[in-house]
Parts: sequence; C-alpha cells; structure tokens
Amino acid sequence: MSRPTLEFWYEFSSPYCYLTAKRLAELANERNVDVVWKPFLLGSIFKSQGREAPVTVPAKANYMWRDLERKSQKRGYPYRKPEGFPTFALMSARIGIVASGEPWEADFVKGIFELYFEQGQDISGTSPEAIFELLHRLELNVDDILARTAADEFKDKLRENTEAALALGIFGAPMFFAKGEMFWGDESLEDAIDFLLEA
Amino acid sequence: MSRPTLEFWYEFSSPYCYLTAKRLAELANERNVDVVWKPFLLGSIFKSQGREAPVTVPAKANYMWRDLERKSQKRGYPYRKPEGFPTFALMSARIGIVASGEPWEADFVKGIFELYFEQGQDISGTSPEAIFELLHRLELNVDDILARTAADEFKDKLRENTEAALALGIFGAPMFFAKGEMFWGDESLEDAIDFLLEA
Repeated sequence: MSRPTLEFWYEFSSPYCYLTAKRLAELANERNVDVVWKPFLLGSIFKSQGREAPVTVPAKANYMWRDLERKSQKRGYPYRKPEGFPTFALMSARIGIVASGEPWEADFVKGIFELYFEQGQDISGTSPEAIFELLHRLELNVDDILARTAADEFKDKLRENTEAALALGIFGAPMFFAKGEMFWGDESLEDAIDFLLEA
Repeated sequence: MSRPTLEFWYEFSSPYCYLTAKRLAELANERNVDVVWKPFLLGSIFKSQGREAPVTVPAKANYMWRDLERKSQKRGYPYRKPEGFPTFALMSARIGIVASGEPWEADFVKGIFELYFEQGQDISGTSPEAIFELLHRLELNVDDILARTAADEFKDKLRENTEAALALGIFGAPMFFAKGEMFWGDESLEDAIDFLLEA
C-alpha cells in the first residue's frame, strides 16, 4: 500500500528550511509518510512578486537569528550563523534536482543544510570542496553528478520547480503541501502531517 | 508572591492576534502567569520601517485567510473573514489603553477581536454601536470610558506604546516578551511561556 505523500518545498539558503531538514526524514518515517523533496529558488519568487526578502527588514533579521539560535539550542542542533547570508545556492539546488527520488536524497539535502548552517561552508558552488566531500561521504561519483547537473533536463527542472512554486502561490519556505493544502513554516510541519493523515 | 509576567503586544486588526486573544487569558491562568496587555498601532510600525503590510502580497494574503480558517476550525472558534480588512482600529486601541490594568481588560480585548473576526462588526469607531454594546456587557459606563479615551494622557500612551514597539524591534503581531526575550506569532505563545517559567 502506498503511503501518503508530503511535499517539502525547500530553498537551501532558508534558515527555517534548515530546521525542517534536520528532522523531516525521521519524523516522516515515524508517522508513515513519504516525502517528496522540492528544491526551488526563493529569490526568484521574491523577484517575481516584486518584493524584497523579509530578511532585508533589519528588525525581522535580528529576530530571525535569535529565534534560530533558541530553537536550535532547544532541539540540540549545532547551528551557527552562516557566513555570507543569504547565498545563491545554485550548485546545491541543481544537485537537489538530480537527487530527486534517489535513495541518497534525504541525506544529501540534510547534509547541505548542515554544511551551511552548522559548518559555515560555501554551498553556492564557488568553493565546491565541501559539497564534493558530502557527495563522497554518500558514496557518489562527483564527476557523474556534476555531469548530470549540467544537463539541460536538470537545469530546466529547477526552473520549472520555481515557476511551479510561483503558480502554486508559494511566497516563502519551508512550504509543505498535504493533499493540496499549503502549510507555511517549520512550525506548521506537524499540522501538515496531521492534515495529511486525517480521514 | 508575584507571578511571572508575559507581555502581549497586540494590534486589533491582526488576525493572528485574534487567535491569541481567544486563548491567552485562560492559558496564562492555567500556567500561573500574569499578562500585560500592550495595544499598539502596527500600521505605524510598517510605515516607520518603510515597508508595506505583508498582507499586500496577494500570495501571502491568500495563505493567511486559509490558515486562519483552518486554525479556527481546529480550535472551535467561530471565525469568519472580517469586512473591510485591514481596519484602523483607533477607538478600540484607545479603549485598550484605558483598560490597562483594569479587571475588565482581558474580556474587553477578547471581545473586540470577536466583534471584528467573528461578527463582522466595525471596531474603528466609525460605527461604534458594537463597541458600545460590548462596554455595556462589561457593565461599564460608555460616556465615562469615551471621556477617558479623549484625554491626552491616554492618547499619548497609545503613541508611546507604538514608539516603544518600534524601539524594541517589533515588526509584527502578536509579539510576546518573556524576561526580555521576544517571541513572534500565535504559534510561539507556548514557547514564550515555557521560556518565562524556565529556572
């Protein structure tokens, strides 16, 4: 019997997606739910909606960093504020597309978030060493993965995800879809799963 | 022995403040916490921060109304989408100031949110009948209350609250303060109380 499916729309530069990625695979497993991982580029969404990222409001940014610190501490995550925020995590997002449906997908996504939000590493692709190391740890062939990210079908897919996000009314991340209903924010993950499992 | 104090910074036009106001007095009582109710004008904060209200982004507004519907349903609140949103709830906010520390404060605040988010009533003061009825129900003298809202000390206090909110880094509502820490959003109410009660 197939399990109910939760979509997790994520952007690697989003701190609240980090909070979700740290716990999603385990929680979904506990609750007998499958996850469809959907990378997209949130910066393009802001641009299309004609607005600035919320983090450009200083009061919001200050709050967000403190909130991240508190929540990470409470959950025991070794979070630290990333260098060079926000980042345009294009290489990571493209590999996220290649990872779709692969057995290493959940570990890869969590791994990239940990590189950026715990280890202060570059995830944009400008200094790709840390990304390559992660791929090695996952026993993947870096050259093979990179060749696939360069292929048009995968590049197009990231653009398509972002266009689909816009069309679906996505305005932030993390965003969850459960039976067609949209749930915004790490704090709404449990609500989304509850909704998915309601009769 | 005095009880720990949670500050609830609220704006009568905020749907998420409605969700909080519906449950705050009871929850605070259960958890042995005192509430300090802080009305302010969120629109002035947006203006001072040089930005538009989040609800001006159509995708965000759509999400918010659906989210409100779902959460109200889950909690059994008879919410319905208000007429003429957002509203400039000046009369209600001024009475909120007059109410500070009065035994009828919690009931008044909850009552105004219910007028607007459950009964589709005007709370700005343009058609003040519903507000007057609420004051009657609370066994208050309407003329006396109105005379106090017109006094400079109360008018100034609302402006001071709004200026203080800006200075504190408040950028949205509901906002809670617990031992000097800021918590944003109805969903963070439990975290704020937990933090307040931590040794």
